[in-house]
Amino acid sequence: MGRHEIPAGRVKITDAFWSPRQRLMTDVTIPYMEKILRDEVEGAEKSNAITNFKMAAGEMTGEFYGMVFQDSDVYKWLEAAAYSLNLKNDPALEKRVDEVVDLIGRCQQEDGYINTYFTVKEPENRFRNLLECHELYCAGHLIEAAVALFEAVGKRKLLNICIRFADCIVDRFMNEDGIPGHQEIEIALMRLYHATGNDRYRLMAERFLDLRGQDADWFKKHTPPHPGVHYGGYDIDPEDAAYNQSDVPVRGQTAARGHAVRQMYMLTAMADVASVNQDPGLTEACERMFENITRRQMYITGAVGSTPVHESFTVDYDLPSDRCYGETCASVAMAFFAHNMLSLKKDGRYADLLELELYNAALSGMQLDGKRFFYVNPLSVDTRVSGIVAGYEHVLPARPKWHACACCPPNLARLVTSLGKYLFSEEENTVYSHLLIGCEAETGHGKIKVESRYPWEGWAEYTLSRGGNFTLAVHVPHHAENFSVMINEEYEKHPIENGYCLIKRNWKENDRVRIKFDMPVKRIHANLHVRDAAGKVSIKRGPIVYCAETADNRFDLSALVLPASSPIHTHASCALDGMIELRAEGLLQTDSDELYMDEVSYKKVPLTLIPYFAWGNREKGDMLVWMREN
Amino acid sequence: MGRHEIPAGRVKITDAFWSPRQRLMTDVTIPYMEKILRDEVEGAEKSNAITNFKMAAGEMTGEFYGMVFQDSDVYKWLEAAAYSLNLKNDPALEKRVDEVVDLIGRCQQEDGYINTYFTVKEPENRFRNLLECHELYCAGHLIEAAVALFEAVGKRKLLNICIRFADCIVDRFMNEDGIPGHQEIEIALMRLYHATGNDRYRLMAERFLDLRGQDADWFKKHTPPHPGVHYGGYDIDPEDAAYNQSDVPVRGQTAARGHAVRQMYMLTAMADVASVNQDPGLTEACERMFENITRRQMYITGAVGSTPVHESFTVDYDLPSDRCYGETCASVAMAFFAHNMLSLKKDGRYADLLELELYNAALSGMQLDGKRFFYVNPLSVDTRVSGIVAGYEHVLPARPKWHACACCPPNLARLVTSLGKYLFSEEENTVYSHLLIGCEAETGHGKIKVESRYPWEGWAEYTLSRGGNFTLAVHVPHHAENFSVMINEEYEKHPIENGYCLIKRNWKENDRVRIKFDMPVKRIHANLHVRDAAGKVSIKRGPIVYCAETADNRFDLSALVLPASSPIHTHASCALDGMIELRAEGLLQTDSDELYMDEVSYKKVPLTLIPYFAWGNREKGDMLVWMREN
Repeated sequence: MGRHEIPAGRVKITDAFWSPRQRLMTDVTIPYMEKILRDEVEGAEKSNAITNFKMAAGEMTGEFYGMVFQDSDVYKWLEAAAYSLNLKNDPALEKRVDEVVDLIGRCQQEDGYINTYFTVKEPENRFRNLLECHELYCAGHLIEAAVALFEAVGKRKLLNICIRFADCIVDRFMNEDGIPGHQEIEIALMRLYHATGNDRYRLMAERFLDLRGQDADWFKKHTPPHPGVHYGGYDIDPEDAAYNQSDVPVRGQTAARGHAVRQMYMLTAMADVASVNQDPGLTEACERMFENITRRQMYITGAVGSTPVHESFTVDYDLPSDRCYGETCASVAMAFFAHNMLSLKKDGRYADLLELELYNAALSGMQLDGKRFFYVNPLSVDTRVSGIVAGYEHVLPARPKWHACACCPPNLARLVTSLGKYLFSEEENTVYSHLLIGCEAETGHGKIKVESRYPWEGWAEYTLSRGGNFTLAVHVPHHAENFSVMINEEYEKHPIENGYCLIKRNWKENDRVRIKFDMPVKRIHANLHVRDAAGKVSIKRGPIVYCAETADNRFDLSALVLPASSPIHTHASCALDGMIELRAEGLLQTDSDELYMDEVSYKKVPLTLIPYFAWGNREKGDMLVWMREN
Repeated sequence: MGRHEIPAGRVKITDAFWSPRQRLMTDVTIPYMEKILRDEVEGAEKSNAITNFKMAAGEMTGEFYGMVFQDSDVYKWLEAAAYSLNLKNDPALEKRVDEVVDLIGRCQQEDGYINTYFTVKEPENRFRNLLECHELYCAGHLIEAAVALFEAVGKRKLLNICIRFADCIVDRFMNEDGIPGHQEIEIALMRLYHATGNDRYRLMAERFLDLRGQDADWFKKHTPPHPGVHYGGYDIDPEDAAYNQSDVPVRGQTAARGHAVRQMYMLTAMADVASVNQDPGLTEACERMFENITRRQMYITGAVGSTPVHESFTVDYDLPSDRCYGETCASVAMAFFAHNMLSLKKDGRYADLLELELYNAALSGMQLDGKRFFYVNPLSVDTRVSGIVAGYEHVLPARPKWHACACCPPNLARLVTSLGKYLFSEEENTVYSHLLIGCEAETGHGKIKVESRYPWEGWAEYTLSRGGNFTLAVHVPHHAENFSVMINEEYEKHPIENGYCLIKRNWKENDRVRIKFDMPVKRIHANLHVRDAAGKVSIKRGPIVYCAETADNRFDLSALVLPASSPIHTHASCALDGMIELRAEGLLQTDSDELYMDEVSYKKVPLTLIPYFAWGNREKGDMLVWMREN
């Protein structure tokens, strides 16, 4: 079985919500990232990434600088740039992309190996420390960039370079045990398999997955001592096998644990392999982990990773709002995972998760102007402690310009610029629409045009360019109420199965399908085991999680109560153009000079809630998702 | 001005609540500690403390072992043993105490200096690293032990040893700048001043206090490098002047910060100096800090220290229940501070604080059997995360046997065994009773016998053995309702000033004063700025804070709601002999397989609350002080 998605190159997004965000990426973020990589942004953290390549190519001298995985910044930018070239003709960018590809090519060693750190600094230590050295991780991002350049804009050169590198990896690791310290190569090898059809890459990905956790002491046994050298800036404990999910075989894992991005990248690859191989054991493991994460370890925004310590999952139901990690990359990876689960099974729960990440935890990683990024996405910020008090240092009340470890911005960039590929799949005689996003898609049944008012209204219209006998399967978001389907001007009833409305019909040219549903404001409550949120309320409307922030609410947010009886109204936001904000009457606990008291009183206060993804765009202040209710 | 307290030697406690706890200390805890110090307890952490002294005396060879401040374990035990000898005749213990005193004497250097670490390991580095080496801290505890032996049982030998040591310290530091890295010597020098009347000790204490913070870079300038040596097991950052409160002159400090025990020891000494010198600037600083701590930075139990990182205060209103530090030593020190504030001013707020610590945060440090101790006293324990998840490692759900850093158990032992001295002060023609604890006290106006049913009932009776014209001033706890005074068989009205009921009278022999007040169960609410507790409820009755724990409540405590309308009843506890427990009807959120949901339902559940100090005595389980309310 192959993949069923309609690739990004065949889906042009024309959406009031997403098109401007894609433009921000192509016009602002991706050029900005490139400047960073070239060290042309004043006041930003030094990157040196391009310079590292020049040194590895023997065209400059100097010291390698940056994380041991600094190369991946270039690769992720390159992948995003590839999608960007698909979105927008930009000959100057294309020329620079070609130059970077050439530069990477000149860094390639005779046997196909590419990594600037090891080429410049420790050529004798290639592939010796898989735990910490991220060579396979970097290789994975390089391969993903190559596949993107090939699929999105038809460029083959980097793909050819990567095939040589991938062959070098396969030659080595098909014959010798090896476990990637940071999962990613598995995703990339599967993408290379899909792009080339060459089975050895799939088999290599499978082997990397299946070796993992067979011996929980593998890294302990195979990590050479390296006194005084700190790859990646810190030492990873070879005995902490749960950190990189190598404590238990992947098919036997039952709960998310350890480093969240590693966990999600692994699951993304597992879902792909399970889908291609129709492997029941792997499928079951993926479903089990999906259940564990979404029912036990995920914030309401879709964020994952409850602690900054090792950027990790912790234990079921441990979801503190104010100290959570919720790394942007982990949410991007959750979207990857959801997308690959859709390859495995067309189940609306996966599309719901994809949607949740896109409109909330992933998107909040980015400033509305595309120039600043969060690494950490908390659900509660209190400027008296966030970023200041021990244990809260990682929780920033404003997006920084750039990060020394610059993984998140390009990860978000590649997600948003490749958004097209997340919209549709085709399988047998069915076209699946997973997301209600305006676009023009070239399907096996002709062009489909989608107009959408989502996420602000439950309204989308599909226009088919060609007739024929097939099923259009439209994802019905889990929150939709009073879902209706109108075909041309007639209301019709169609079955909803696994979260998709199946409209089977002998279509005529220019047939229009209009779907409509209500998106009432919903008060959401947390499971009783979530100590931090149980008894509180958070507000959702459609796919959007809402929050209160200081810019609209000039009081201490910890004084706020949103009574269960208080009606909540929608308004077009003045401050945040094009968004729907919510207003309600809240109660405010009266201030007191005492720390503890018998009685407290409350007074009414107008409350404004804004979409969570848009917080922190106006001023540095407090923010709150879970509010007291009474 | 001297101190006004009636010393422990003149107050014999005969109290249903406290006498058994004093007996536990004399019969169980103090002998157990001694065994630990002598390394005679199997399975306990190695101490080596007595052995270190033998090596310093040249009577054994070997390696020094333990913290750089290991000596202080012996001194604190010695102080507790001194009070213990006052409580109970024990010739065998007395003999061993004398032997330890002799051993300490044999460790004394020619110039008076005593410290086993520096004598054994680094004689050339004496007093060179005041930041980390705790020599003055150990000296302080030695002096406190000496004063206790002198005052409680009339033994002078250690006092004489200490006078020589104190003179050595004064000679050095009156002529040379020096700031103690861990405050304690200041308390001890004041106690030595009170015991001997020698002004140079008071002046030395003053000088230590006044030098502190004059130059925020003092430790940075005066801490020698010591590569590879970690005094006290970890390095202290010489640039973090706030850690040991040396960033601002003590008179100018406005908010508690840094290491909580250091902060509270410093304030204890400041209050003593302020009282003796009638120093308005220092008095004002003490009052300001008292206000800051009790109105901004103290848990409802009296615990202080919001974070395990540096065992520190953080910022105003940052009082997380589940990750708090609340070190037992810090609460013991809060009691010391409150006690010394009573020397400064007879104000019921100080007696209230003393009472709060005694019945809650300090007492919870100790198992009911006297054999196990908490270092950390959280207000919420969830066995799924406490002691396990990163950031919660310090929060233990059960008291351990002993600690590598064994500061807390002997600190609690010396507080409980010397409790007598906290009960009364005399000033001019007034006898102040600060605590409602049964006792026989020898006052300047004859013996006063107190019978008490506190803390379970608001009832105490004072019987005076001698007539005369004076005022009996009885502290009226801040929570008392319908306070009444009956003299002999007549109700009388007497003025209450600053929290004391002033009964001025020409007393006759055998006059009886009976005070009575109501102690209704109270629902306490937190200031709106306390994010963790705002909107929740905690329950107090009299001085006792209550909590729910698993042993009585077989459900997930995070599901619990205590409705505002639910009556709370008192019951004699079956499980915890002699205590009052509380019962109410609570609500329990219904369990669900979903993580987030629109609706939650509740069912009724019987709820039992027990005194906070008694939690964790029956089984390992969860515990909760702040409960949801609706």
